[in-house]
Amino acid sequence: MDYVNGPGRNHLFVPGPVNIPEQVLRAMNRNNEDYRSPAVPALTKTLLEDVKKIFKTTSGTPFLFPTTGTGAWESALTNTLSPGDRTVSFLIGQFSLLWIDQQKRLNFDVDVIESDWGQGANLEVLASKIAEDKSHTIKAICIVHNETATGVTNNLATVRKILDHYQHPALFLVDGVSSICALDFRMDEWGVDVALTGSQKALSLPTGLGIVCASPKALEASKTAKSVRVFFDWSDYLKFYKLGTYWPYTPSIQLLYGLRAALDLLFEEGLDNVIARHARLGKATRLAVEAWGLKNCTQKEEWFSDTVTAVVVPPHIESSEIVKRAWKRYNLSLGLGLNKVAGKVFRIGHLGNLNELQLLGCLAGVEMVLKDIGYPVKFGSGVAAASAFLQNSTPLIPSRI
Amino acid sequence: MDYVNGPGRNHLFVPGPVNIPEQVLRAMNRNNEDYRSPAVPALTKTLLEDVKKIFKTTSGTPFLFPTTGTGAWESALTNTLSPGDRTVSFLIGQFSLLWIDQQKRLNFDVDVIESDWGQGANLEVLASKIAEDKSHTIKAICIVHNETATGVTNNLATVRKILDHYQHPALFLVDGVSSICALDFRMDEWGVDVALTGSQKALSLPTGLGIVCASPKALEASKTAKSVRVFFDWSDYLKFYKLGTYWPYTPSIQLLYGLRAALDLLFEEGLDNVIARHARLGKATRLAVEAWGLKNCTQKEEWFSDTVTAVVVPPHIESSEIVKRAWKRYNLSLGLGLNKVAGKVFRIGHLGNLNELQLLGCLAGVEMVLKDIGYPVKFGSGVAAASAFLQNSTPLIPSRI
Amino acid sequence: MDYVNGPGRNHLFVPGPVNIPEQVLRAMNRNNEDYRSPAVPALTKTLLEDVKKIFKTTSGTPFLFPTTGTGAWESALTNTLSPGDRTVSFLIGQFSLLWIDQQKRLNFDVDVIESDWGQGANLEVLASKIAEDKSHTIKAICIVHNETATGVTNNLATVRKILDHYQHPALFLVDGVSSICALDFRMDEWGVDVALTGSQKALSLPTGLGIVCASPKALEASKTAKSVRVFFDWSDYLKFYKLGTYWPYTPSIQLLYGLRAALDLLFEEGLDNVIARHARLGKATRLAVEAWGLKNCTQKEEWFSDTVTAVVVPPHIESSEIVKRAWKRYNLSLGLGLNKVAGKVFRIGHLGNLNELQLLGCLAGVEMVLKDIGYPVKFGSGVAAASAFLQNSTPLIPSRI
Amino acid sequence: MDYVNGPGRNHLFVPGPVNIPEQVLRAMNRNNEDYRSPAVPALTKTLLEDVKKIFKTTSGTPFLFPTTGTGAWESALTNTLSPGDRTVSFLIGQFSLLWIDQQKRLNFDVDVIESDWGQGANLEVLASKIAEDKSHTIKAICIVHNETATGVTNNLATVRKILDHYQHPALFLVDGVSSICALDFRMDEWGVDVALTGSQKALSLPTGLGIVCASPKALEASKTAKSVRVFFDWSDYLKFYKLGTYWPYTPSIQLLYGLRAALDLLFEEGLDNVIARHARLGKATRLAVEAWGLKNCTQKEEWFSDTVTAVVVPPHIESSEIVKRAWKRYNLSLGLGLNKVAGKVFRIGHLGNLNELQLLGCLAGVEMVLKDIGYPVKFGSGVAAASAFLQNSTPLIPSRI
Repeated sequence: MDYVNGPGRNHLFVPGPVNIPEQVLRAMNRNNEDYRSPAVPALTKTLLEDVKKIFKTTSGTPFLFPTTGTGAWESALTNTLSPGDRTVSFLIGQFSLLWIDQQKRLNFDVDVIESDWGQGANLEVLASKIAEDKSHTIKAICIVHNETATGVTNNLATVRKILDHYQHPALFLVDGVSSICALDFRMDEWGVDVALTGSQKALSLPTGLGIVCASPKALEASKTAKSVRVFFDWSDYLKFYKLGTYWPYTPSIQLLYGLRAALDLLFEEGLDNVIARHARLGKATRLAVEAWGLKNCTQKEEWFSDTVTAVVVPPHIESSEIVKRAWKRYNLSLGLGLNKVAGKVFRIGHLGNLNELQLLGCLAGVEMVLKDIGYPVKFGSGVAAASAFLQNSTPLIPSRI
Repeated sequence: MDYVNGPGRNHLFVPGPVNIPEQVLRAMNRNNEDYRSPAVPALTKTLLEDVKKIFKTTSGTPFLFPTTGTGAWESALTNTLSPGDRTVSFLIGQFSLLWIDQQKRLNFDVDVIESDWGQGANLEVLASKIAEDKSHTIKAICIVHNETATGVTNNLATVRKILDHYQHPALFLVDGVSSICALDFRMDEWGVDVALTGSQKALSLPTGLGIVCASPKALEASKTAKSVRVFFDWSDYLKFYKLGTYWPYTPSIQLLYGLRAALDLLFEEGLDNVIARHARLGKATRLAVEAWGLKNCTQKEEWFSDTVTAVVVPPHIESSEIVKRAWKRYNLSLGLGLNKVAGKVFRIGHLGNLNELQLLGCLAGVEMVLKDIGYPVKFGSGVAAASAFLQNSTPLIPSRI
Repeated sequence: MDYVNGPGRNHLFVPGPVNIPEQVLRAMNRNNEDYRSPAVPALTKTLLEDVKKIFKTTSGTPFLFPTTGTGAWESALTNTLSPGDRTVSFLIGQFSLLWIDQQKRLNFDVDVIESDWGQGANLEVLASKIAEDKSHTIKAICIVHNETATGVTNNLATVRKILDHYQHPALFLVDGVSSICALDFRMDEWGVDVALTGSQKALSLPTGLGIVCASPKALEASKTAKSVRVFFDWSDYLKFYKLGTYWPYTPSIQLLYGLRAALDLLFEEGLDNVIARHARLGKATRLAVEAWGLKNCTQKEEWFSDTVTAVVVPPHIESSEIVKRAWKRYNLSLGLGLNKVAGKVFRIGHLGNLNELQLLGCLAGVEMVLKDIGYPVKFGSGVAAASAFLQNSTPLIPSRI
Repeated sequence: MDYVNGPGRNHLFVPGPVNIPEQVLRAMNRNNEDYRSPAVPALTKTLLEDVKKIFKTTSGTPFLFPTTGTGAWESALTNTLSPGDRTVSFLIGQFSLLWIDQQKRLNFDVDVIESDWGQGANLEVLASKIAEDKSHTIKAICIVHNETATGVTNNLATVRKILDHYQHPALFLVDGVSSICALDFRMDEWGVDVALTGSQKALSLPTGLGIVCASPKALEASKTAKSVRVFFDWSDYLKFYKLGTYWPYTPSIQLLYGLRAALDLLFEEGLDNVIARHARLGKATRLAVEAWGLKNCTQKEEWFSDTVTAVVVPPHIESSEIVKRAWKRYNLSLGLGLNKVAGKVFRIGHLGNLNELQLLGCLAGVEMVLKDIGYPVKFGSGVAAASAFLQNSTPLIPSRI
């Protein structure tokens, strides 16, 4: 019962879950432990301190929920809002759609600002809504930093500017699932109130941690938020933080040690270097797509994502055939097009613990798949475009002796 | 950052998380995979089919939530009940207390039947409440099969008999966290509507799967239950079950392969053999406690638990000192007394993938700790009582050539 | 103390040790065991039976020495020859040189047939020596099937034909370290008397097993061979084979289980499919080298190796700079030029558990390194040449659903 | 194909291979690497420096052979002696017998001093031989520090005193396979010329490293020693030590990282603390044996071994039945009696990364097996004797917070 066993490595280029570095696999290769011993709290303490760095916050309070991104969303919303509260949300792709769906099912009054899939959040509409909302009926702005379905990165700094300009007190809630640890993200500077990510994305861990970080204002809001919550309630965690035992229920010992290793790797490379690496790999991917004569689903450069590229295929091609073929012939895992863009795009994830040659192998694989599927790609064209850029920009690996 | 590193193995005898067998560690030692490939659904399909066996159900529908037992509770409740619904719950220890607390916070009208900590659920009171409830205001009976804090196992068959006797339609919701895969549990035969467990208990996996199984009646109830839920909603899973892709959001690849290995081990040993092994180890532990002249927190034999034994210490001893000492001197992890029995009991977990000699090592360790702490234990007395019983009753290991 | 930790995977393209598949890593992730229990002999029995398949022999007797290829050489020689015995050996590169050196130090009378590095064994000279040797002073022909230093594969079938033509009884000893499990090798058909390989080569295990296979004639020779040996003596093994306990001294439990997993993977893919895959990857590599305008160190197509390609760099380039740069900037491990070809060639290993996209990633990396070092490579040229060939020839992965 | 899978852990109490700590398993859970990169030499350098500490030498030169203890023996002998050289060797059990056999097969003139199995080396006979040997025909004294078959530890300091007293220049070669890292061993102080051990013994690694340490005098001897050797030749290593690349042939990457982790654990606990722990566990075992009314195979206290205890069974009992039963019913691996003491003794190994409760579990298991087999043991008697001693003498674990 193990299908990922063609000869050689599986080439994992979905935009999550991503490749786990050996150091993290090693750290997780361990028996369970009593989480009530002195050891687990001592470890947890370092994690809570250090995980703040990936959000670039000093004032935030992090929570390590044993859940997925969907659970982290729910935790962000239910701890800060009450049923009937008005949220403004941007519908720009499948993951923003799912979050909006969750907001509706949690009984918020969701004010949806829709864009074409491939465009970023329409911040002009946001600005006008904020401008109009003198009575502050808008309780929260909910925005996906990086829409994983279309490869669109939204401009969070502008959201903050709009709120500040109108001195609007709405909470600023950010889904950073496919951005944090990979794209430039500045919780404190941008006044983000709740930011969240999942362990299986740029942190390069297995799925299982929904990491949520709350600003002091969000914590304050949680005291009066009336949404029903138990498992996802911050107050239970805060109670155990005070006691120094940290856990209201059983954490995954393996993921805690894995997170420790993942953070150590990030800090060793340097978070800003990690972000720069993602910028390099993102650009290299886009240069390849361009060289192939294919279109990026993302309509403007300002929204280009450095963690995932959704590639538009010509109308006569069914993109899911590309994904199937890649998997079945070349042990290459690409992302499907989802919902509105199903059949129309395939996605290359280029996030997490990844390097240049892994990406180039993927790009060479895509070329072969494109040829397989009847698209007249010129072999080596995408790789050449990507390589020329990467050969210019890749730094030496600092840890190498 | 790894405190469990005294020489030799950590002796893990908390009632969860428990020891992970090497076969499961090996199965989990792997990179991430694309969960949308054909491989993960194919694996999931076998898991959903086979996991029903641990509940002894053929008609139930299982869900593998990426969460803990606390989340599994929430899933069981919110999918079957509406705010204001009356539940009957038994308060007999810390975990039943926490579940009751959750029920209250989820806005159910909780009718609590309290017993002394150390006693089982008072089923006579249940019977009278059911008898009186001609108008069927009671929507659910919520019961912890095995109260982990006191080592008390409740009689589920009797609950079913009471409901049947009065033809009462209340749902029968069971927390099987520290029982399923270790104690006799029969979902179909006992007419349990929702049963649940956590991966880090008798399944001997890391924390991270909340396994919930719903009867057809519970599924039916979920169609009208008005409790707010998204992450824990069964309907999202059912939608993807129909599609054959199974996952509404990202599962932990490692835990899926780990669950496969854990189920394989269970079935290889034989589920009934596993339960018989727990019965042997449970009885051996109780014989040791008796030999030490200490009292079992559980007040009657009918409630004795075969997965955890809470040992009452003499009044002048602080039980948490025993736990600390065991950990610091002998690399032995015992369970603390919780809440009402804090300081008064320590707990020996004897569940999961465990054998006779591991338990005897633990019992020998407890003897040394008791001596350390000033209790006049006779060395070897508990081990002798347990050994005499085990030497008589332990079968040959069938898989040995 | 872990330098291979640049972001992303290390790209391991030395001609051994090679990448270990996850399945093998998992199988080896285990505690020690008593090798005198019934379990280890039962496992060993299957290994000895199945390992014969990789040699394509039914009449051979295999030995799993806890050693390296150098030890396996010594075992092959000392068990079959006596001091002063005349051997004919071919000096065509660093590894044949080292074997010759060993033969001399073991006090054999080595008759060396030398070729330019980059040429294969001179079998015409062999033929004349055999023709002349009416009195059968030549006791053994020692030949490296695949010279790892230059990427030269020798024609073993011809060696057999020569011996048969002259009805010469010399033993036929073959170093298959970088060939067996990757190149076409037929012990029985070619009348090879001793064949050997190392676990860290095409078997894709860690270093630590020197696998030696002896024909009935070689076993017969071992009864009278006077070379001193103890650790490497076959007779100790044969004694324990008869007893059914198999091991004269302690084996590595982990490597035995790893070998089991490695053989299972080989047989699942199909040994002939594995060999065909190596042929594809070898040809793809040579096409890339040609596209770059560089020369293969191997001088004729008949000697081209499908497991390693030694690439000649232009005179003004120092090849070790390429290897250093690849490692330090791109996390790419290439093989150095050794001895006579030091500074003049670098080597790409393409053996073991490897697939098309891994190789293309390596080739793209070599292109960037060549540019780094000042060689006017056209980006994408090698990748294009290799891809065009691979896209035509790569089969679907049979195990994929 | 995995028989060690009864429920729970295998209890591994053979005197090697021993339990591998999780930290070491984790360190070894890794892909291969290019051993010619700068990383492996940098790692090797620290290993060669630190491994000297386990021999308590500053002047010795260590070699990490990819082999077993048998290979390490061969390396010690062939590098220092020439065919025909007279050695004095002590025959006191199966492992000294095997070493003597090796010496004979390597063509040395072995002067055997035999003792009853269960007695130590007869140093009085040695003294008289040395006294008589005015012409220094004795080239080496070969002695097993700890005879694993009988649990006998020889007095090495006295050997040195005898040599010094007579100013005899014989080399002093010591098999420390089941002693080094567990018993008091002082290479420099005792003037040992070659000491050796295997990785699977007290170092608690997998089998695969034969660690040999040579004094300056031994290195000097190796320059003129005429025994034939290639794989085991020190001079090849010394050549690569000078070059700073360290390896004449491919090492096991995994074992190097494993050795690093094993040494780190040893030094963290403190080598002298490790030795003291072995003394405690050894004494506890002997107290249990005494309490059971059984005899130690070792005839005098001065020879008692702290790494292995050979227990003599009553004449009507076949000791191999005990070993079989332990394995088949209790997942307990005990050591068989070997050769002369086959059927008469079983062995409890108590070496390596092991703690008190593991040993007590083993002792409780032995009690059950003894009862199974018809020996009238009193349950708990051995455990009680061991516990009473251990409870008095076990220190707190220093690394625990």
